Amino acid sequence: MVSEISGRAVISGIGQTEFSKDSGRSTLRLATEAATAAIADAGLEPADIRGTVTFTQDENDEIALATAVGIPELGYTSRSRGGGGGSGSTIQQAAVAVASGVADHVLIYRAFNERSGRRFGQPLKGNPDPTWNPYRPYGLDTPMKVYALWAQHYLHHFGLTNEDLALYAVQAREYASTNPAASYYGKPLSFEEHQASRWIVEPVLRLYDCCQESDGGVALVVSRSDQASRYPSPVRIRAAVQGHLRGGHEMFNYYEGDLTYFPETRAVATRIWNEAGVTGTDYDVALLYDNMTPMVFLQMEGLGICGPGEARDFIASGGMRLDGATPINTNGGLIGEGYIHGMNLITEAVRQVRGTAANQVVGAETAVFCSGRSAVVLGAW
Amino acid sequence: MVSEISGRAVISGIGQTEFSKDSGRSTLRLATEAATAAIADAGLEPADIRGTVTFTQDENDEIALATAVGIPELGYTSRSRGGGGGSGSTIQQAAVAVASGVADHVLIYRAFNERSGRRFGQPLKGNPDPTWNPYRPYGLDTPMKVYALWAQHYLHHFGLTNEDLALYAVQAREYASTNPAASYYGKPLSFEEHQASRWIVEPVLRLYDCCQESDGGVALVVSRSDQASRYPSPVRIRAAVQGHLRGGHEMFNYYEGDLTYFPETRAVATRIWNEAGVTGTDYDVALLYDNMTPMVFLQMEGLGICGPGEARDFIASGGMRLDGATPINTNGGLIGEGYIHGMNLITEAVRQVRGTAANQVVGAETAVFCSGRSAVVLGAW
Repeated sequence: MVSEISGRAVISGIGQTEFSKDSGRSTLRLATEAATAAIADAGLEPADIRGTVTFTQDENDEIALATAVGIPELGYTSRSRGGGGGSGSTIQQAAVAVASGVADHVLIYRAFNERSGRRFGQPLKGNPDPTWNPYRPYGLDTPMKVYALWAQHYLHHFGLTNEDLALYAVQAREYASTNPAASYYGKPLSFEEHQASRWIVEPVLRLYDCCQESDGGVALVVSRSDQASRYPSPVRIRAAVQGHLRGGHEMFNYYEGDLTYFPETRAVATRIWNEAGVTGTDYDVALLYDNMTPMVFLQMEGLGICGPGEARDFIASGGMRLDGATPINTNGGLIGEGYIHGMNLITEAVRQVRGTAANQVVGAETAVFCSGRSAVVLGAW
Repeated sequence: MVSEISGRAVISGIGQTEFSKDSGRSTLRLATEAATAAIADAGLEPADIRGTVTFTQDENDEIALATAVGIPELGYTSRSRGGGGGSGSTIQQAAVAVASGVADHVLIYRAFNERSGRRFGQPLKGNPDPTWNPYRPYGLDTPMKVYALWAQHYLHHFGLTNEDLALYAVQAREYASTNPAASYYGKPLSFEEHQASRWIVEPVLRLYDCCQESDGGVALVVSRSDQASRYPSPVRIRAAVQGHLRGGHEMFNYYEGDLTYFPETRAVATRIWNEAGVTGTDYDVALLYDNMTPMVFLQMEGLGICGPGEARDFIASGGMRLDGATPINTNGGLIGEGYIHGMNLITEAVRQVRGTAANQVVGAETAVFCSGRSAVVLGAW
């Protein structure tokens, strides 16, 4: 079954705040600023917006956000469960609302003070999400710990070490160093600096293998494609898919497969093929959720950008550079630009297809965003 | 703009557990039982389901539920923000996924142990939803208190008292008394018993003006209409709408209008008219979210089932009885059958259109469900 998203919905606008360690203002303000910028970027007025999509984890009520932005009425709202694994789901939810005629324009927003407020990298406390219960008794009480256990098996299986993960981190920070919007703008990372950084989960993840904790907001507007001439710079949504398998949780799955690959990403790759007819080697640029370095390797292989176990050599040989086979995380990724739960990778995908990225891939027409269990393929209008 | 939901999506199956004060089992179990029943009612297998929709407040993870039910893979998930005010939104979210071709069949579920677990009627504690912050400092720390303040103005404006609200409660309990699935099956309520019940918020709400706190689960399946001949008893979704206005919160709005009417319900009535071309006087049966008795009055008037201030006389003259102008809450409502966050009113709407309700409206072809800021219109297939 092929959905009708592709022919009916576009991304018409994007907006964001600065990414920092201390925004100094409320998340409602951050969301409002990003939303206002995205609506203006789409050439629209707040009153044009008739729907919203955000994360279940976003603390900003739809109506509070609409009231702050100046949107008088909403006829559609939905939320994506959990964290950044669902970031691509927000595009899908907005697109189905638009494609089915429920709203002409849907605003997607995500904002948090993840560094100056609750830090996601710290151990879970109190009474958090019960879906973590299978993991916490074993000490897996931070994202780094729960992902490192999986990554350790992946590294072992393919004969890799933390030094191989460093290859990605160094390249991502090189991109960040030339991206004025990035937290690490002007601050490249050497291999030696990476290897000198402290262990977070030995022997898998060092400090510079982990994304930042960031304050900031990102917003996008999804609109009807049959009115695309109204928008200054529309980008086609060629596919927007989710892929959840039994036993999966956020962006890991300890109950499916043999831990040497990412089963959910294989599932979304199949769905992308069905929706858009493109494979891993067809992308001009890829934005892959890099909450930690090994996740990039696993998604590259899951999407088919390279074969199983080949991500290391792909990166080492320059494959993710601007002149490589598939440039990856050209904004610096979540590691280099900032961590707004994946949404700033989607806006980078939009910029690449528009041709307006800080580190632009020449002639980019097809971009993929993947957050493990959700993915979006964008195409030039 | 008219959406394409109407021509493309049907409700193919419904399921529920018993409604009680102590289920004795987990909410995952309740959701699984209801989901399994709904899938069977639709004539489907678990593997046919490719999407889920639930509430942000539901504690059951989509993948955990899918794993328990036997659904191998999900390609669509979304959630409706908040509580029962969004119960109709779940139908809309499922319908747009189906209408746009993302999934052939989407499972909606809602389960809680609201009586044996966390009781919604008790004051908010700890660090609840920040959107309640404008109300709690004034002592409005329970649903009854925050709704009673609004209802008190409504009653005053139209010269009504708690005795008038009793008219609804008595009729709802009469329906419940002949509905084997209802908590109050075999237990009608007299006017005198209502008036003898203790005040919850004097002088507006007595005990029997408030819905029950219930344990239980409800599920529905929304499916493609072009395959409707496969389902034993499909029901057409003629409209599924949301209507959120500035200043609104859950099912009240202290910042819009003059508190004598329900602005969000007027908004959804307009949307229903646009989508389905029906008005308040066109419904064969209405299921109206009765977390408290005055909310039925406000929604009757907001939908146009009767004019402003006329709900009392409409009920007093038998208008909501089976032979009345618009039978209302024929399962006993949330007050009489049980409180599963509104979802059991949607299943009753399905039963009425199918002709299988315990208290059946003869020849019912069009049913409306309204939860203030969301609504669904169902039609016979």
